[in-house]
Amino acid sequence: MSNSFGKLYTLTTFGESHGPAIGGIIDGCPAGLELDLKAIQYELDRRKPGQSAIVTQRKEPDEVEFLSGIFEGKTTGTSIGFIIKNTNQKSKDYSDIKNTFRPSHADYTYTQKYGLRDYRGGGRSSARETANWIVSGAIAKQLLKGISINAYTSSVGEITLDKELQDIDFHNTESNSVRCPDEATAEKMIEHIKEIKKQGDTIGGTITCVVKNVPIGLGEPVFNKLHAELGKAMLSINAVKGFEYGSGFEGTKLKGSQHNDAFNTNGTTKTNLSGGIQGGISNGMDIYFKVAFKPVATLLQKYETINSEGERVEVQGKGRHDPCVVPRAVPIVEALTAMVLADFYLLNKSIKL
Amino acid sequence: MSNSFGKLYTLTTFGESHGPAIGGIIDGCPAGLELDLKAIQYELDRRKPGQSAIVTQRKEPDEVEFLSGIFEGKTTGTSIGFIIKNTNQKSKDYSDIKNTFRPSHADYTYTQKYGLRDYRGGGRSSARETANWIVSGAIAKQLLKGISINAYTSSVGEITLDKELQDIDFHNTESNSVRCPDEATAEKMIEHIKEIKKQGDTIGGTITCVVKNVPIGLGEPVFNKLHAELGKAMLSINAVKGFEYGSGFEGTKLKGSQHNDAFNTNGTTKTNLSGGIQGGISNGMDIYFKVAFKPVATLLQKYETINSEGERVEVQGKGRHDPCVVPRAVPIVEALTAMVLADFYLLNKSIKL
Amino acid sequence: MSNSFGKLYTLTTFGESHGPAIGGIIDGCPAGLELDLKAIQYELDRRKPGQSAIVTQRKEPDEVEFLSGIFEGKTTGTSIGFIIKNTNQKSKDYSDIKNTFRPSHADYTYTQKYGLRDYRGGGRSSARETANWIVSGAIAKQLLKGISINAYTSSVGEITLDKELQDIDFHNTESNSVRCPDEATAEKMIEHIKEIKKQGDTIGGTITCVVKNVPIGLGEPVFNKLHAELGKAMLSINAVKGFEYGSGFEGTKLKGSQHNDAFNTNGTTKTNLSGGIQGGISNGMDIYFKVAFKPVATLLQKYETINSEGERVEVQGKGRHDPCVVPRAVPIVEALTAMVLADFYLLNKSIKL
Amino acid sequence: MSNSFGKLYTLTTFGESHGPAIGGIIDGCPAGLELDLKAIQYELDRRKPGQSAIVTQRKEPDEVEFLSGIFEGKTTGTSIGFIIKNTNQKSKDYSDIKNTFRPSHADYTYTQKYGLRDYRGGGRSSARETANWIVSGAIAKQLLKGISINAYTSSVGEITLDKELQDIDFHNTESNSVRCPDEATAEKMIEHIKEIKKQGDTIGGTITCVVKNVPIGLGEPVFNKLHAELGKAMLSINAVKGFEYGSGFEGTKLKGSQHNDAFNTNGTTKTNLSGGIQGGISNGMDIYFKVAFKPVATLLQKYETINSEGERVEVQGKGRHDPCVVPRAVPIVEALTAMVLADFYLLNKSIKL
Repeated sequence: MSNSFGKLYTLTTFGESHGPAIGGIIDGCPAGLELDLKAIQYELDRRKPGQSAIVTQRKEPDEVEFLSGIFEGKTTGTSIGFIIKNTNQKSKDYSDIKNTFRPSHADYTYTQKYGLRDYRGGGRSSARETANWIVSGAIAKQLLKGISINAYTSSVGEITLDKELQDIDFHNTESNSVRCPDEATAEKMIEHIKEIKKQGDTIGGTITCVVKNVPIGLGEPVFNKLHAELGKAMLSINAVKGFEYGSGFEGTKLKGSQHNDAFNTNGTTKTNLSGGIQGGISNGMDIYFKVAFKPVATLLQKYETINSEGERVEVQGKGRHDPCVVPRAVPIVEALTAMVLADFYLLNKSIKL
Repeated sequence: MSNSFGKLYTLTTFGESHGPAIGGIIDGCPAGLELDLKAIQYELDRRKPGQSAIVTQRKEPDEVEFLSGIFEGKTTGTSIGFIIKNTNQKSKDYSDIKNTFRPSHADYTYTQKYGLRDYRGGGRSSARETANWIVSGAIAKQLLKGISINAYTSSVGEITLDKELQDIDFHNTESNSVRCPDEATAEKMIEHIKEIKKQGDTIGGTITCVVKNVPIGLGEPVFNKLHAELGKAMLSINAVKGFEYGSGFEGTKLKGSQHNDAFNTNGTTKTNLSGGIQGGISNGMDIYFKVAFKPVATLLQKYETINSEGERVEVQGKGRHDPCVVPRAVPIVEALTAMVLADFYLLNKSIKL
Repeated sequence: MSNSFGKLYTLTTFGESHGPAIGGIIDGCPAGLELDLKAIQYELDRRKPGQSAIVTQRKEPDEVEFLSGIFEGKTTGTSIGFIIKNTNQKSKDYSDIKNTFRPSHADYTYTQKYGLRDYRGGGRSSARETANWIVSGAIAKQLLKGISINAYTSSVGEITLDKELQDIDFHNTESNSVRCPDEATAEKMIEHIKEIKKQGDTIGGTITCVVKNVPIGLGEPVFNKLHAELGKAMLSINAVKGFEYGSGFEGTKLKGSQHNDAFNTNGTTKTNLSGGIQGGISNGMDIYFKVAFKPVATLLQKYETINSEGERVEVQGKGRHDPCVVPRAVPIVEALTAMVLADFYLLNKSIKL
Repeated sequence: MSNSFGKLYTLTTFGESHGPAIGGIIDGCPAGLELDLKAIQYELDRRKPGQSAIVTQRKEPDEVEFLSGIFEGKTTGTSIGFIIKNTNQKSKDYSDIKNTFRPSHADYTYTQKYGLRDYRGGGRSSARETANWIVSGAIAKQLLKGISINAYTSSVGEITLDKELQDIDFHNTESNSVRCPDEATAEKMIEHIKEIKKQGDTIGGTITCVVKNVPIGLGEPVFNKLHAELGKAMLSINAVKGFEYGSGFEGTKLKGSQHNDAFNTNGTTKTNLSGGIQGGISNGMDIYFKVAFKPVATLLQKYETINSEGERVEVQGKGRHDPCVVPRAVPIVEALTAMVLADFYLLNKSIKL
C-alpha cells in the first residue's frame, strides 16, 4: 500500500491539500498508552504554517480530531483514526494552473501516471500530508519513553552550523524560528532566508537528527536495516534529495584504520563514525544522520513553462509559500524517526525466546 | 519479513557465509519471460571474489542452481527457488573470533539482539548475501527490456571521477578492474587500492548509477516514492553510509531559480537536477544517484578489541578480504536498482483504468 | 496490519460504535473510475439499521462522506478517505455493562487481550464496522463492471431455500425484507424471525453467494487461493462460523467419479461441483459459496453472567438488536466478495508478460 | 506474495513436483529455540507417500535439509532455508498429459492464467508443496510449547466418527493408518478406502482439529481474526472445500438462548459452541474446527476430457495416487494450525504496554 508506512506500528493516510480534510489511521499502537494530547498538538504547531516571519504566511490551525482508538485517555489497541480539517482552501480560481505543468513539481508526473490529477494546491503531492505524519510521530514519541529525538537545521544554503555534535545544546533548537541550536548561526540563516524571500526565490538546506538513549538491538539485519528504514522515511519527505548517517559521504574518503570505532570494555565505542548502527542494528551509541532538502520549487517570480497541450506559457508565481522548507521540516524529521524506531521497538519484542 | 524485498516482484533470502548454501525465492516474476541463464551467471561473475588483483583472493565459483519456476527456458509465474553453494568455507578454527567483537562489525549487535550468533565468517551479516540479490536483479534486468542500468565507481578515497554524466561512456566500465569508466582515473584508483592493501588497510568510495530509458510514471507518490525505495535498497548494501539522487547534498546550496528544471515542449526538461524523479515518480529523464561506501572494517593489522566477557583482547586481522568494496559492489547496485524498477513496473500495471 | 484488508485494492478501517465516527481508507483503487455515489449509498442503505420490521429498530442514516481521492467525479489514484458519522449513540449510562462480560460476546477476550476495552456498545467489536466494508465493496463493484455478485438468505434456522442455483431469480432478493429470492420461503423466514423476536431470542442462518461472469484466472495458486481469500473474508464478518464453496461439506461424501466436472470442448464444464474455482484460480464458471451465521448473542432476556471481578451477576438484555443478522449481512457478503475479486483482478494485471 | 504465509512467523515456498527440489524459507522464528530435528522428520514421515496400504504407493524419503538459520542446534533469528529433494520423478514421457486438461485439476486454470504450465505431475499445483508446510509447522509446534494440536480423520465418505470431542483419546490417532482415534470407526474407514481404491475411484472426507491449552488473547479483532486465519490456512490445502469452527453450520439452526456459552466464575465457559474463539480472539477454551476434503480428482479409470486445442480426448488414468487424501492431510492440518498460532503468539507480544 503506497499510502502506508511501517510494519507493526503503521500509519495509513489520505488527503489532498484542498479537500475537506486530511487524515490517517494508526494501526498497531499498543493498548494502555496514556496519551498527552497537548504534546501532539504542540508538534503540529511546530509544523504549521504562519508560525514565524520566515515561513509561509498561510494561516491554518491544523487541529487534530481523534475519532477512534482512544478511550478514557488511553489507547485501546484498536486502530486510531484521525482527521485534520482543511480550513484555508480559498475558493479561488485554479484555471491558471489547471493545465499548466509547473517546473520541478509533481504536476507532470501525476498527470502522466494517473491520466488526471487534482490540480488544486498540489493535490496529494502537497506537503500538507506531513501533518498526518506529525500526529503519528507524536504518538510514537510517547511510546518511546526515554529515547530523545533531536532534529535541527544544520545548514541553510551555504550557511552551516559548524559545531561538533557533542557540543550542541538541543534545548536551543526551539529558541529561534529557523530551529538552529546555535544563536549566532541561526541569526545568519534567518537573515539569509529573509533576503531570499525578498527576491521571490527559495533556498535549500539540511537537517541533522541525533537520537539518544536508543536501546541496543533495534533494526533488522538484511532488508530492514535501521538506517535503511530511516533513509526511506526521510526520502519520503517532500523536497528531500539525500540521506547519510554516521560518517556519511565524508567517510568514503577514510581508511578503515581511521574509520573503525574501537570498543570500550562496556560495549560502548570510543568514536562513533558508525552513527550508532552496526549491521543495520542499533548499538546503543547516539544515532545521527543528515537529510538534504532542495530549494522549494514554487517561486514568486515570473517564469516560462508548458501546458498539457505542450505549449509554452508564462506563469506568474504567487501565493504564500515557504522560502525555505527546512525550519518547518524539523518536526517532520523527528516524527518519522519516532515512527521508524517505534516500529522496530515493537518488532524486537518477538525476536528471541 | 526482514529477509524479503519488494511488493510484487519480491525476493526472500537465506544463508550464512559458512553454511552449506545461500539462496532465495523470487516471487512475482511474470510468466513467459524467456531467461538468459548465461546473463545471470555473468552478473554473478562480476561480483564474485577472486576476479582481479584488487579484490579478495578468495575463490568461489558462485554458481546459481535454479530449483523451480522455470520450465523449458521460460518463467512459469510460480516462485523461482535457487541456491548458491558455499564451497570455500575452510574447516578452520574459529575459536579466536568466537568470543571476540570485532570493531565496526555486526558481531556485537547480533549477539546483543539475538542472544547468540553464527560467528563463522560473519554469519548472516556477511556480504555473501548480496550474491542472492545479483540473481534476482539479473532476472529483473531481463524483465526490464529497454531500460539500461549503468553503475560505476565514481570515487575511491579522495580520487574522484570528474566528468559530467553525459560525457561518460558506460561501455568502458567493465574494461578495468575498478569499474571506473575513465581509464586514467581508473588507473589511479587501482594504484591507490593496491597501496592501501599493502598497508593491510582498506579504503571507502562511491558508486554512481545512471538509469536510462525509464518509462514515465514509475514510483508511488507518498510512502513508496521511487527515490525512497532506491535509497532503502542502496542502504541495505553492507557498508553503505549514504544515498543522494539528482542534485543531492550539493543541491541544498542552490536557490530555487537555479534548481528548477525548465520544461521543453515535449515534456522533457532542459536540465535534470531532479534526477529523473518528480514527486516520487519517474519523469522520463535519466535517473541518477550516488551511494557512499565506508572502508571495509576488516583490516589485516593487529588491533585491540573486547571479548564477550568485556575483556580487552588483541587480535591479528588475517584472511582474504577486500581492500575496497566498491568494485565488487557495482553489480550489486545495478541488481537492486533493477529489482526496485521491476517492482514499480509491475505495480504500475494496475494504477489506472 | 490487523485493520487492513487486501493487497493491491486495500481497505484500512477504524471506528468504535460509540465514537464520533467510523471510517476507512481505500488504497489502490485505479485512477479514472467514474464513481456512482448513489450506488454506494444504496448499498449502505441495504445494510443500515431500521430498514424493516425484522431488523434492529435503531435509526442511523449511515451517510458516507468522502474526504479525498475523488476529483470531478472520478478516482484520482490516490487514497480515498471516508467517514460515516455515528449519530445514534445515546448518552446513556453504560455502568451496567462496564464491568460485565456478556456471554458469547468479545467483552471478555478484548479485556484479557488489551487490558482494557471501550465497553460502549461493543466498541471496536461492533458490527457497525461492516458499514466501512460496504463503502469499499460498493466501489469495488463499480470497478468490476460486468461481474455480477448475488448474495441472498438461503436459510433462517431450519427454514431453508430448496432450489437449485440455476432456478433462482436474483432479481427477487430485494423484493422482501429477509432477502430470500423465493417469495414463499421468504414469508416463512420472516414469520419465523418475528416469532423469535417476540421471545426475546435470536436465530442463525446462512447466506449463499453466486458470482457470475468472473474472468478466468483470478486467484493465486498457493497461499492466496481465490476460495481461501473469500473464506477469510467471510470469516471476518461478525457471527460467521463456517464457509464452504462448490460442493462443500456434502462433497466429502462423494466419489471422485461423481465429483469431477467434465469439460465441454469450449473449456466450460458440464457440472460445477468445483464452484467455479480450480487450484485456487477461477475457471470462468459461476463461483458459489455458503456462509454460516450463528444466532446473535444479545438476547432481550434476563440472564446470568460474570463481571470483571469474577462475580456472578444477573443482567437484563435490552436495547434494539437484530433478532437475526442474516438479512442485513447479505450486502456485507457481497461487499467483501467484490473486494476480494477486485484485488485479484488488479493482481492479475502483472501475472504474465 | 502469493507463495508466502504469515506476518511475523512467515513461510515462503517454492517447488514443482518434478523439479530437482522443493523448499522454503522460514522468516521470523525467534532466536534461541533449540530444535528437535527428529521431531520435524517425524512429521514429514506422517505425510510422506508409501506409508501404508491406503495411501499412494509412491516412495519418497522426503528428507529435509536445513541450509541456514540454525547454529549449534539452535535457531539464530535469521531466516531458515531448507530444501526437500525430489527423488521420485520418473523420466517418463509426459506427452499424454502435456496438452490434456484433466477434469477438476488445475491444468486448465494454470494454462489460462499464465499462458503456459509445467505439466509434469501437476507442477506447482501438486500437493507435494505441503511437505514444505510440514517443516514450517513442525518448528512452529516446537515454538508453541504447551499447546497441543490434535487433528484426526472425522469422516471418510459417509462413515463418520460419532463421538463427543471430550470422549476422544487423541493418543489413538496414530495407532491406525487412517488416523481416526476410534479403532472401530477406523477399521470401517480403512475397509471403505480399500474398496474405493479397488474401483479405481476416490473418496472425500473430513478432518477435525482440536487445540488445547491455547493462551487467551491470540487473534486480531477485525481482519485477522483467529478463525479467519485458520480458515484461510485450511482452505489453502489442496482439495479443501469447506471450513467451520465451533458450532459451525449446525449452529445456524440454533437460537441464541441455546447457543450462548455461559461463563463460569473463572472466565471459562460451561459450554463451548464458540469453539474457543470470541470476536476473533482465543478465550482459553479448546479451539476446534472441521475441514472438508473433496475426493481426489485423479482416477485410475478411463475418462473423456479435452486437450488444449479444445478437442475431445480419452485418457486412461494411471500412476500411484491417493484413493483418499484425508489420512495424509492430518499432519498438514496440524502444521498450518501451528503456523497460524505461532504467528499470533508472536504478534501478541507487542499488543499492549
